[in-house]
Amino acid sequence: MQGLWLENNVLQHRTDLPIPEPHVGEVLVQVLMAGICNTDLELIKGYYPYTGILGHEFVGQVVRGPNHLQGKRVVGEINAACGQCDYCHRHLSNHCEQRTVLGIVNHHGAFAEYLTLPTENLHPIPDHLPNHIATFTEPLAAALEIQEQVEIDPSDRVLVIGDGKLGQLVAQTLARTGCQLSVVGRHPEKLANLAVRQITTCLESEINNHLRSFDFAVECTGNPQGFELARKALRPRGTLVLKSTYANHLTIDASAIVVDELTIIGSRCGPFAKALDLLATDAVDVAPLIQATFPLAQGIEAFTIAQQRGSKKILLTMTD
Amino acid sequence: MQGLWLENNVLQHRTDLPIPEPHVGEVLVQVLMAGICNTDLELIKGYYPYTGILGHEFVGQVVRGPNHLQGKRVVGEINAACGQCDYCHRHLSNHCEQRTVLGIVNHHGAFAEYLTLPTENLHPIPDHLPNHIATFTEPLAAALEIQEQVEIDPSDRVLVIGDGKLGQLVAQTLARTGCQLSVVGRHPEKLANLAVRQITTCLESEINNHLRSFDFAVECTGNPQGFELARKALRPRGTLVLKSTYANHLTIDASAIVVDELTIIGSRCGPFAKALDLLATDAVDVAPLIQATFPLAQGIEAFTIAQQRGSKKILLTMTD
Repeated sequence: MQGLWLENNVLQHRTDLPIPEPHVGEVLVQVLMAGICNTDLELIKGYYPYTGILGHEFVGQVVRGPNHLQGKRVVGEINAACGQCDYCHRHLSNHCEQRTVLGIVNHHGAFAEYLTLPTENLHPIPDHLPNHIATFTEPLAAALEIQEQVEIDPSDRVLVIGDGKLGQLVAQTLARTGCQLSVVGRHPEKLANLAVRQITTCLESEINNHLRSFDFAVECTGNPQGFELARKALRPRGTLVLKSTYANHLTIDASAIVVDELTIIGSRCGPFAKALDLLATDAVDVAPLIQATFPLAQGIEAFTIAQQRGSKKILLTMTD
Repeated sequence: MQGLWLENNVLQHRTDLPIPEPHVGEVLVQVLMAGICNTDLELIKGYYPYTGILGHEFVGQVVRGPNHLQGKRVVGEINAACGQCDYCHRHLSNHCEQRTVLGIVNHHGAFAEYLTLPTENLHPIPDHLPNHIATFTEPLAAALEIQEQVEIDPSDRVLVIGDGKLGQLVAQTLARTGCQLSVVGRHPEKLANLAVRQITTCLESEINNHLRSFDFAVECTGNPQGFELARKALRPRGTLVLKSTYANHLTIDASAIVVDELTIIGSRCGPFAKALDLLATDAVDVAPLIQATFPLAQGIEAFTIAQQRGSKKILLTMTD
């Protein structure tokens, strides 16, 4: 089959890949559409030493699986857990130490014609939800993870740092809490997309008058300047949510964190069911976040576009 | 009066200092004894650009103040707040943006014959509590701050990193929660002091079999290796309490924090009343943490000893 294969920091389009064979408890899924995520770009740069098919945001159709899933269009959670360990028993299977992760850790990913995942990872999607919208389930779930970790009230002042794909999703989910939300970014046209949704936005150059005032800051840029801005934006005892993938080590002002008694929380994968619900009810608008769709055969070109600074979501379609 | 004066990273013993004049609402305190803290050493290295009399751990006697304090032996909270701002009104005066900090920020410190502090900062101490024990009130309160910030249960596995002065106090306070406590350090003789208190200890070389297993890790070393060990010791979703003063920036593995969804909490000054209570009831044993006591006139020599790696608490006495 076709697929985008990562090896030694080089991504190749290959046509000689075997269709993966599902293990016991796994389902074979024909991939319909998949999205390129910043984590994919970081993996190419060497964030984690992965060799195999890349990709973890997808919509597919079950071609071999249990009756209740057979033929269904599905999205899939990316952590394939052992089901046996302490974390799995405590409903923290996303942290299972034996887990594989679709397109990231020891598990071939979604930029291919087929993939496999455990049955319990799959979520059927409503018929009316188009593929290009449903592909956002995984990143939207990651955005929603913030609210699984911290309680955000309407009285809270919350700053999202970054107007990119992740920042846009995070901002839209946080706006639903009724909190006093602001988004700081570098791209007027991307901030405008949030402003039309009644979300307060500002450019980085405008934030200086509002430092040391936010209860929460959510770092969605993945760069050290974004982290530093998040820290400075927080009031003493504020909370910094670290939502990005960082390929490199991060140098921080530890004294400031101690003196201001800040809390920093790492945040990763989130609840698929809630994300699907938001997409199915149009409560979150992801269509403006899409830049272009490429057939899988042009996947390398698609990555070239995705790697350009400021690019929006690039989708790959496997059925054209 | 005599005092130890810090200016341009040089500490000097001076005899030409004026006795400080208390402002409205402040009390004049004759210092009886004071302790050298790692923060003092970091200030000399340039952790914060402070010029003035150093020192913030002390016991003194009120020589000019309101009737209820006159002549009393006291310890004192080090943050002198404005009393007007939002933080002060929310009982978070330790985070008052206008605050001065004894011997650290815009407020002459305790390594002198006299100091001033706001009346409300002072806590009279019981007659039976000797000066050399009461001098530990401030650092012990800082250790207790951890339990003001996170709830630690008997079922929690907690690792303290560092067997120095701060680590010893933190360990003794955490042991009182009944949690499953371990302390990792580099000094067998210091670990032995905890072992006699039925606290589990190990050397750094022995911790490798217990990584990724602790619910809480408390970093008390102030060095990057200590932070890295704390991070690696934590299970996914664990909490790292950052208790040390860091003179330099800290480089961290941000990806690991995101992937494991760790929480990092900065922790600073704590509750004086609770600390005094523990000292007055002998619930915490600080005497073994004292290395030597020097008269103030030999303060520079005392600092030379305090700066030696692995040194225990050095006290300065102002009355000999």
